[in-house]
Amino acid sequence: MTKGRLEAFSDGVLAIIITIMVLELKVPHEADLAALRPLIPIFLSYVLSFIYIGIYWNNHHHMLQAVRQVNGAVLWANMHLLFWLSLIPFVTAWSGENFFAAMPVALYGVVLLMSAIAYYILSRVLVWHHGKDSTLAIALGRDFKGKISVVIYSVAVLLSFVNSWLALMLYVAVAIMWLIPDRRIEKTLSS
Amino acid sequence: MTKGRLEAFSDGVLAIIITIMVLELKVPHEADLAALRPLIPIFLSYVLSFIYIGIYWNNHHHMLQAVRQVNGAVLWANMHLLFWLSLIPFVTAWSGENFFAAMPVALYGVVLLMSAIAYYILSRVLVWHHGKDSTLAIALGRDFKGKISVVIYSVAVLLSFVNSWLALMLYVAVAIMWLIPDRRIEKTLSS
Amino acid sequence: MTKGRLEAFSDGVLAIIITIMVLELKVPHEADLAALRPLIPIFLSYVLSFIYIGIYWNNHHHMLQAVRQVNGAVLWANMHLLFWLSLIPFVTAWSGENFFAAMPVALYGVVLLMSAIAYYILSRVLVWHHGKDSTLAIALGRDFKGKISVVIYSVAVLLSFVNSWLALMLYVAVAIMWLIPDRRIEKTLSS
Amino acid sequence: MTKGRLEAFSDGVLAIIITIMVLELKVPHEADLAALRPLIPIFLSYVLSFIYIGIYWNNHHHMLQAVRQVNGAVLWANMHLLFWLSLIPFVTAWSGENFFAAMPVALYGVVLLMSAIAYYILSRVLVWHHGKDSTLAIALGRDFKGKISVVIYSVAVLLSFVNSWLALMLYVAVAIMWLIPDRRIEKTLSS
Repeated sequence: MTKGRLEAFSDGVLAIIITIMVLELKVPHEADLAALRPLIPIFLSYVLSFIYIGIYWNNHHHMLQAVRQVNGAVLWANMHLLFWLSLIPFVTAWSGENFFAAMPVALYGVVLLMSAIAYYILSRVLVWHHGKDSTLAIALGRDFKGKISVVIYSVAVLLSFVNSWLALMLYVAVAIMWLIPDRRIEKTLSS
Repeated sequence: MTKGRLEAFSDGVLAIIITIMVLELKVPHEADLAALRPLIPIFLSYVLSFIYIGIYWNNHHHMLQAVRQVNGAVLWANMHLLFWLSLIPFVTAWSGENFFAAMPVALYGVVLLMSAIAYYILSRVLVWHHGKDSTLAIALGRDFKGKISVVIYSVAVLLSFVNSWLALMLYVAVAIMWLIPDRRIEKTLSS
Repeated sequence: MTKGRLEAFSDGVLAIIITIMVLELKVPHEADLAALRPLIPIFLSYVLSFIYIGIYWNNHHHMLQAVRQVNGAVLWANMHLLFWLSLIPFVTAWSGENFFAAMPVALYGVVLLMSAIAYYILSRVLVWHHGKDSTLAIALGRDFKGKISVVIYSVAVLLSFVNSWLALMLYVAVAIMWLIPDRRIEKTLSS
Repeated sequence: MTKGRLEAFSDGVLAIIITIMVLELKVPHEADLAALRPLIPIFLSYVLSFIYIGIYWNNHHHMLQAVRQVNGAVLWANMHLLFWLSLIPFVTAWSGENFFAAMPVALYGVVLLMSAIAYYILSRVLVWHHGKDSTLAIALGRDFKGKISVVIYSVAVLLSFVNSWLALMLYVAVAIMWLIPDRRIEKTLSS
């Protein structure tokens, strides 16, 4: 089975997720700068989530590069990842509209955590399908970044009940870590 | 006529259907856990519909694999399927917001029933176009799962007026049956 | 310049247009059948517009089949067509929510008329780019259906101020005429 | 790394941006022509933004034609461009709903300015990746139109506090300048 439609469907879902988030920036009725002030936290949460969806698209793109074929298990592992990512607009809006209160920020972290786990499952299903000596398996390596992200998200979810800004800073830190492109796969593929 | 754009258009519509459903999860104004409680049935109906759209995408993907060419009749049979699937966000939201009352659950079943019939029509049009001895015809076989789904949906629609939870359990049961990937086509293609 | 991205972008826009129309079917708060009654005209206008977008996608698909290359003029003629089609959700909702009153039905007709003219312009730009002896030019022929549609829409717009149901019947009649697949191009291509 | 998914993802995002803008044309409850009058500025801002997204898609299409390969930096420069373009529906609606008041028109200009800068960065990253003697670098040339746009947008943002209609006329002027297709790349590619 070819991977073309899996990529096309994932691109479609990610493109829609990233774009419907902007609908939460409700157009104010007044035309002055003050009318934008309540939108600032919603805008900031939009920026963070935009970057996160960008990271997932980027990594998904990289990982699928090394994939030769897909099967039913891969399709469903991918659908599972898209499910958690589809909840990001909800937790983004909830966090933004409540000025980053504890519970919304914790739920944001839970969705990030589940997305990271879903991504990890997808990578394992792909490795299992391609074999431990495949280009893909070598390219993914020990997946240090994936594992450390899961740990940081878990800590951040708990921390958000102590201080939600600390949790947010951890989400930002993980995003920055991932913004550095995944050279493992690029290197292995070009060698 | 090539099948590329048929796949691309269907992927686009399915990606949008699956993603706009999440817009029904209206962001609550309060920031505590209690504010999420009324969203639970909406979330559950979202999960079920997400899985159903995933199943249709999955099966559509499988069936189109074995397709060599499409004509006008195929395009319209496909459009007919997309029409019924496009109503799933509406019945999902109606069921979720009314805590799975009888009428919304029955209508959910009607849309599932019509989608299953539309999928069956699409498969017949494809077989008719490719010939009874084609790889596609052999791969589809007697389509036991498709036929039994139609029967179960019909029973469930009637049952929903007796007990809507029984109907929902039947919808879940059909989904589980389909989650097992369609090995018929995979087998025939790889042999 | 290749036509691939032109098709992909058009597919994307058409897929979104067709799907956001369903958002006008606002979920009722009550869970009984009576709650659906006010939705009937909105549903009927949705069905008609779904079929129209389907027809445009179908014809666009057919016409682009015979296209070899595109240039800037083609891109903008295509964008012009997408602009008018993007207004269909608005006129669909306005017609449906006002039980097919004169003014909304007339505006619906104006948008159909402008879309038909935009489609005609696109076909002329393509013929002009490929030459009068090209497969495309021969396949399109005299474009009788395109021209008669423009005439019928114009009549229907005027008629809608006399009786909006007569206008609607003309819109339905044109849709039925187009539902018969465009064999001109299919024939010419396969010969 | 291939450019196929970069194009597909960008097409998806641009197709959604262009289509969700039409959702701001809120369907009026009355069925007469007077009910459309308050929608006129929203409609006009929709037309302008539709053309702007069309121009970006068009230029993006042209530029990517000459691209051979992409890397992580290109993906993120592209994501950065999509981020600013994703804010166009917001500033379009804000400008339209406030009859082109000073502050919304200025913010519209800021988003256009940032989009132009993001496009310029993307082109520089691509040239840096392909080399100064590449077909792409020669095709882009000195990028006069890109640079003059940035200047005009900056002037227009300041002007909008003096007279917002002057600013709007400058936005329209830049759009007209870009509507003339980018012959530089077409020429270089075909030579």
